[in-house]
Amino acid sequence: MIKINENYKKLQASYLFSDIAKRVSSFQEANPDKDIIRLGIGDVTRALPEACVKAFHAAVDEMAADATFHGYGPEQGYDFLRQAIAEGDYQSRGCNIATDEVFVSDGAKCDSGNFQEIFADDVRVAIPDPVYPVYVDTNVMAGRTGAAENGRYTGLTYLDGTKANGFIPALPTEPVDLIYLCFPNNPTGATATKAQLKQWVDYAKQNKALILFDAAYEAFVQDPDLPRSIFEIEGAREVAVEFRSFSKNAGFTGTRCAYTVVPKDCTAYTEAGEPVSIHELWNRRHTTKFNSVSYPVQKAAAAVYTAEGQAQVAELVAYYMKNAKYIREQIENLGYDCIGGENSPYIWIDAKGDSWDFFDTLLNNAGVVCTPGAGFGKCGEGYIRISAFNSFENVQQAMERVKASL
Amino acid sequence: MIKINENYKKLQASYLFSDIAKRVSSFQEANPDKDIIRLGIGDVTRALPEACVKAFHAAVDEMAADATFHGYGPEQGYDFLRQAIAEGDYQSRGCNIATDEVFVSDGAKCDSGNFQEIFADDVRVAIPDPVYPVYVDTNVMAGRTGAAENGRYTGLTYLDGTKANGFIPALPTEPVDLIYLCFPNNPTGATATKAQLKQWVDYAKQNKALILFDAAYEAFVQDPDLPRSIFEIEGAREVAVEFRSFSKNAGFTGTRCAYTVVPKDCTAYTEAGEPVSIHELWNRRHTTKFNSVSYPVQKAAAAVYTAEGQAQVAELVAYYMKNAKYIREQIENLGYDCIGGENSPYIWIDAKGDSWDFFDTLLNNAGVVCTPGAGFGKCGEGYIRISAFNSFENVQQAMERVKASL
Repeated sequence: MIKINENYKKLQASYLFSDIAKRVSSFQEANPDKDIIRLGIGDVTRALPEACVKAFHAAVDEMAADATFHGYGPEQGYDFLRQAIAEGDYQSRGCNIATDEVFVSDGAKCDSGNFQEIFADDVRVAIPDPVYPVYVDTNVMAGRTGAAENGRYTGLTYLDGTKANGFIPALPTEPVDLIYLCFPNNPTGATATKAQLKQWVDYAKQNKALILFDAAYEAFVQDPDLPRSIFEIEGAREVAVEFRSFSKNAGFTGTRCAYTVVPKDCTAYTEAGEPVSIHELWNRRHTTKFNSVSYPVQKAAAAVYTAEGQAQVAELVAYYMKNAKYIREQIENLGYDCIGGENSPYIWIDAKGDSWDFFDTLLNNAGVVCTPGAGFGKCGEGYIRISAFNSFENVQQAMERVKASL
Repeated sequence: MIKINENYKKLQASYLFSDIAKRVSSFQEANPDKDIIRLGIGDVTRALPEACVKAFHAAVDEMAADATFHGYGPEQGYDFLRQAIAEGDYQSRGCNIATDEVFVSDGAKCDSGNFQEIFADDVRVAIPDPVYPVYVDTNVMAGRTGAAENGRYTGLTYLDGTKANGFIPALPTEPVDLIYLCFPNNPTGATATKAQLKQWVDYAKQNKALILFDAAYEAFVQDPDLPRSIFEIEGAREVAVEFRSFSKNAGFTGTRCAYTVVPKDCTAYTEAGEPVSIHELWNRRHTTKFNSVSYPVQKAAAAVYTAEGQAQVAELVAYYMKNAKYIREQIENLGYDCIGGENSPYIWIDAKGDSWDFFDTLLNNAGVVCTPGAGFGKCGEGYIRISAFNSFENVQQAMERVKASL
């Protein structure tokens, strides 16, 4: 008899986005003449940078002739892209990361979901709350939790983000082995300082723990004193892995390219305490279960690192950050407390009450869609997230309507 | 302390392709003026079909303008592609497969490696030998085996393919729950008849087992009486999942697009024996850990199903099959027993001795690279695989040289 992975039965059905969709479509049916402005999901809206489009087309042309055709590439990604990443995102910023420490992939979602596979079933996992739900769900599937009780899985260590700590969680008080961190944070937009990250790196070194650092939103950091990579912190090469993506900076959400940096100094341990290279473990996993990213997509991603590409990505980021700043100002002027929007495309708003009530008010009175914070964990209750990914015109109109309706 | 998944320690290092690479480079160093013809790995060599190139470019152009830009798509793939697959590959051939039973992915390697995750750790697994190594390795990583002994993992049921059974394994004599089958087979090129597949479907129904059917090479089936899908077999909707790919028919090895068909009638069971929909389980896994395939790549894949695309894919397949027929004839004329090459791009040759000795003879005397069968499992020892994926001119020259050297 073919038996299921019983851990899947523990998964709480995520009604968040289907609930949102239902409420939006009910509103549209009742108000067919009203147009809706979507500031809910974190999906970019502007075209790919011209440099990427040019490189994309050129690579498709290579695939169109036998003499320049590319079949299977290296599973870890082509060196032209791995090297551009190592130099452009790390070495140029003083981080000691080598080309062969970069693993190209089709998404930070996949990597952040898959990375836990190479560790033991009984490692103790710490996950921030509120946060991107993939970290929790993939550990539930792997059997590292008990059942859910009051919206939280037993066996997980939740790292609470609250107004009191500025949504920068404190170190855990119980021992943990695998720590997920995400800065700039999704959904709160909170960003950790170097001193704050240093505490985590030190904790990991003292406890032989590993940090999985999700830096998918690093491009939106404006403050030059804030770290954009965990590898700006001394000692991180021994205890941290970093996930990055072209989704948000270069608009690759529908084009699909990302990467994970696994330093060769990162160590895990056998049951008997012998050190094992995490780089080697991940390389084995990656080459066995993955076959790299489309060649034309890798060429398009590499164009991000040309002078033209860098200028175009900077322009895209600046565009969305103008939206973010505007949203935060307008919402604060209405008397609501916000964080985020300064070094992040997300604005996290204290709803002064129930997440879903505030969602309904914005939808029904202003025709604006946001995301209720409760969907990101227990600590997200009472908050909503507004995304800056839309046109400035739509953002302006949305804020006018919100002002008139609150 | 961050502990590793101890199952990774059981994995046998695969020296096959690195051994091949080492021997090839030694030969090249010793013979710098000799050119080598590679008929080893199963990678296509000819350009993408024109219809795919055209659609690929058009979709990149859509990504270049805000008004037509595509961000995140549905995790299961766009309906335009899922529907083209369901109609073009199944409904048109009398198989009852619906659009929402098709899950688009970035590779059959990934899907065939990941699918086991949704089942219990203690399901009993049956895997053919010789076969594509990913099925075995991913089950080792998941902890479904003991250590390796004499080249085989304890706890797995190996389904022996031998000259006596024409490399079509017999049903297992011990009970199993999860069965991997691959026809046309990689590496042997053997192809199962409908009657043979019917036995497996009946076995699965009687034993509440599930068949994972890898049909990555179905496009090469020439005999109209041979099945190209497990879903041509009555009852398969209840007990089978099928992996397919655009890699070999349309030359997508470097472009990356594949799909998995999971019928809604497929059932697995809880520990307590309650039925659970495998379609729902896989949907949960797929949407949690994957974010779909690049939009331009999906558009390129959909072009395979246009009239122009179908004609171009047929031409590509015919080209490689002309090579396959030629290779088999030439090798048989030299007095070697072969299977494959008739409904498959692979020719599996009885080396009349050690795989590696034969490999060395072909490399050193003819400058031709093949793949030693031992790399595909214990039953592959004594055989070599020759691939038809190259230009006809290279294949002709390779066979002339082989003739002169044996």
